[in-house]
Amino acid sequence: MNYKMIFYTVGQVLLLEGAMLALPVIVALIYAEWSVALSLSETAAVALGTGLLLILCLKRRNPAIYAKEGLIIVSFAWIAVSLVGALPFVISGEIPSYVDALFETVSGFTTTGASIVTAVESMSRGLLFWRSFTHWIGGMGVLVFVMAIASRTPDRSINILRAEMPGPIVDKLVPRSKDTAKILYIIYVSLTGLLIILLLCGGMPLFDSVIHAMGTAGTGGFGVKADSITGYNSYLQWVIAVFMLLFGVNFNLYYLLLIRKFRAVLRSRELWSYLSTFAASVILVSYSVYPLYENFSDVARVSFFNVSSVMTTTGYVVENFTAWNAPLAKAVFVALMFIGSCAGSTAGGFKVTRLVILFKKAGNELRRVLHPRTATIVKFEGKKVGEETLGSVSVYLALYVISFTVIVLLLSFERSFSFEANFTAAASCFNNIGPMFDNVAGGGTFANYSVFSKLVLAFAMLLGRLELYPLLLTVNPYTWLKK
Amino acid sequence: MNYKMIFYTVGQVLLLEGAMLALPVIVALIYAEWSVALSLSETAAVALGTGLLLILCLKRRNPAIYAKEGLIIVSFAWIAVSLVGALPFVISGEIPSYVDALFETVSGFTTTGASIVTAVESMSRGLLFWRSFTHWIGGMGVLVFVMAIASRTPDRSINILRAEMPGPIVDKLVPRSKDTAKILYIIYVSLTGLLIILLLCGGMPLFDSVIHAMGTAGTGGFGVKADSITGYNSYLQWVIAVFMLLFGVNFNLYYLLLIRKFRAVLRSRELWSYLSTFAASVILVSYSVYPLYENFSDVARVSFFNVSSVMTTTGYVVENFTAWNAPLAKAVFVALMFIGSCAGSTAGGFKVTRLVILFKKAGNELRRVLHPRTATIVKFEGKKVGEETLGSVSVYLALYVISFTVIVLLLSFERSFSFEANFTAAASCFNNIGPMFDNVAGGGTFANYSVFSKLVLAFAMLLGRLELYPLLLTVNPYTWLKK
Repeated sequence: MNYKMIFYTVGQVLLLEGAMLALPVIVALIYAEWSVALSLSETAAVALGTGLLLILCLKRRNPAIYAKEGLIIVSFAWIAVSLVGALPFVISGEIPSYVDALFETVSGFTTTGASIVTAVESMSRGLLFWRSFTHWIGGMGVLVFVMAIASRTPDRSINILRAEMPGPIVDKLVPRSKDTAKILYIIYVSLTGLLIILLLCGGMPLFDSVIHAMGTAGTGGFGVKADSITGYNSYLQWVIAVFMLLFGVNFNLYYLLLIRKFRAVLRSRELWSYLSTFAASVILVSYSVYPLYENFSDVARVSFFNVSSVMTTTGYVVENFTAWNAPLAKAVFVALMFIGSCAGSTAGGFKVTRLVILFKKAGNELRRVLHPRTATIVKFEGKKVGEETLGSVSVYLALYVISFTVIVLLLSFERSFSFEANFTAAASCFNNIGPMFDNVAGGGTFANYSVFSKLVLAFAMLLGRLELYPLLLTVNPYTWLKK
Repeated sequence: MNYKMIFYTVGQVLLLEGAMLALPVIVALIYAEWSVALSLSETAAVALGTGLLLILCLKRRNPAIYAKEGLIIVSFAWIAVSLVGALPFVISGEIPSYVDALFETVSGFTTTGASIVTAVESMSRGLLFWRSFTHWIGGMGVLVFVMAIASRTPDRSINILRAEMPGPIVDKLVPRSKDTAKILYIIYVSLTGLLIILLLCGGMPLFDSVIHAMGTAGTGGFGVKADSITGYNSYLQWVIAVFMLLFGVNFNLYYLLLIRKFRAVLRSRELWSYLSTFAASVILVSYSVYPLYENFSDVARVSFFNVSSVMTTTGYVVENFTAWNAPLAKAVFVALMFIGSCAGSTAGGFKVTRLVILFKKAGNELRRVLHPRTATIVKFEGKKVGEETLGSVSVYLALYVISFTVIVLLLSFERSFSFEANFTAAASCFNNIGPMFDNVAGGGTFANYSVFSKLVLAFAMLLGRLELYPLLLTVNPYTWLKK
């Protein structure tokens, strides 16, 4: 294990975090929140100091890393930025408990949006901004960081990451990963900017617009109000609903649009599966909640928004939809929590892409029973899917199911929550959605869980966000044994 | 598609059902239930008549069948015996609705034990016997019928069925399937007989003993009382608990015991995984319910019994355990519902065996990230598991998850049940457990579901019992198209 290189990279990431903390400091200064600005600055100092120390101490390193180091780096980096990023909440006293602050920060960086804050309206602007900024950074991190690792290391790791991001593979956008990163940044920033403008046009205050744009872009879900998006006008709700859907699309398709390969976009099986799952879900939810509303436009808005929110694992909420007497809607939401959106987007979940591949594989298996001598090939986006990828997707499903079961069992040690509460809390965190479905009325807060459960849920968020492998390897003792 | 051979075999199975109906007729006569005896005799006449007709009409058939015909036969046979087996309930008027009677009969033959009967104590002896006898026949059917098909058809079908029953494969017991069947019958009958004797020794009335022995052997769960086994003394509860566990063991191991291959039994990875999952679950459930009981022996008895019942998918209940304020116990039960027992037993569920193989495959995948050049082989019971079997098990998991999701969605069209109720009802039927967990207090009855939902649940029971493929092929239009 190349420890030096691992910690060197973690140092780099911390430096980046320190630099990024400048933005919330500025926000805090604008709103004259001096003590908040101080707590953020102190955190920036910690991040920069630790980062510099690591980089300087580990100057003489061997830059060669293999797949395992790559995955460990991803997981250490995410943990390090969360550990440091939690500090301002504690220093400022707005979230006195460090575990709570850590929960909130992990939830931010993993773009989950699960919160232990019970009175979000009374938080300072500076920390509200930092909280949502972590969504935006996390979303970018998911898009680029993992991919950068993928193209840096040879063979096997690419295989793993390919399996994790099936469909049009990112490293084919442009030959070098740095350029890929740049293109993705530009698309991400532009879409966020566009969203801010559209929200401003609808009369949303600037601060709220920026917060919600960052939360939407990262498919995170942190906002500024306890009732999430419910209080805004329907134009704003529609804008956010559509943009959530857009951020659930594979970013490669935007690149293809940029270089005018429209036909390739239209042919994308992934996109059509995503949109048709979305449309079917909206229809089912609308059918289910129709008796509860007076006019069709409300039904359409509420169904579209919440389906978009859950499927893209964002977690913004319009109306207290889990209190609806609509079991079909609830069942659809639970299914969507696990399905998620496209690979190569900022969304979490199992991913439509993997599901399509599994469906095809299962269909092939059934066909093989009928016609034993027929050769069966699984094709996706016009290309043959190799046996190795098929195997990886299947293993991923198995690991997904097993991990989820273990999380629910660990949460169940808590005696004060029902099975349904634990199940949906686990599903919400593991799939990076956010609000606790059993408790959306109270802002879906996780405040009442025990310290142990909060740590389990924070782990679940990281596990889901990093697509299992990095974290599973990190906690696997076998990884740390000398060969 | 060899239709003649399919319906010829269905005819044979109906003849067998007609013959078996003689037993409940005798029971009804003993208890002087004349009208019940008549309704059972009429049903026997229908079964024998239809069976004979099919056999005589299809005398000139081509006996060659392939995998697909084999699977279609399994599914048609199960449906045909259920359609006919439901008649006595309707003719006697004890279950006036045919759909309800069908639900009850499918539940019987699939060894599920889910019931729409709200007042089981007022049912006639003859029909109570028939209801539980279907469990016993169904359990035997699962053990032997599917295996007979497996050994009758060449190549691919064996592959499928091997994938469905990994571990020590049945057709290796003895070269010819007829002999295999005979051995399995003998073991099954002997264990049932032994159980009846042990129950009689504990003071259970003869009729109750026979009913519960058949329900235990088939891992079904139909009984004679609304509170299931709660009212019997603790000796009887322990006996049933242990025998449920025994019927969840792969029957090959009993054969190995018979021929004194004790070492092979002790080395069975499947057996140890089964027993250790069982032990771990009993410990977790005991820990969870400990505060609710006064002494340790009650905790042990109730935990052991209910874990045994759920894990073997039997569904007998001691105390109203879902009303316990014990979320951990509930989470364990839900997990066990899906895990099930060993392959080659009468139990349903996903099967421990498949889970072990998936675990090993997942572990290998993680190891491969660490050491990319290491060759990784999945071994089970000392033998290498082929890529094809690994693929089949993965596909089976995917089909399992997808099927379950669709069943829950279909049930959710019903507006009067909560998500949790629908989820556990679907899990209970699909995994062939039986009582509706949300409603165990009321005998876990399914009476209040709509006709549509009852049919969906009956389909779910068949789907789970026949291990997906037969029924999925039957409802797949592609199967019925000319090539």
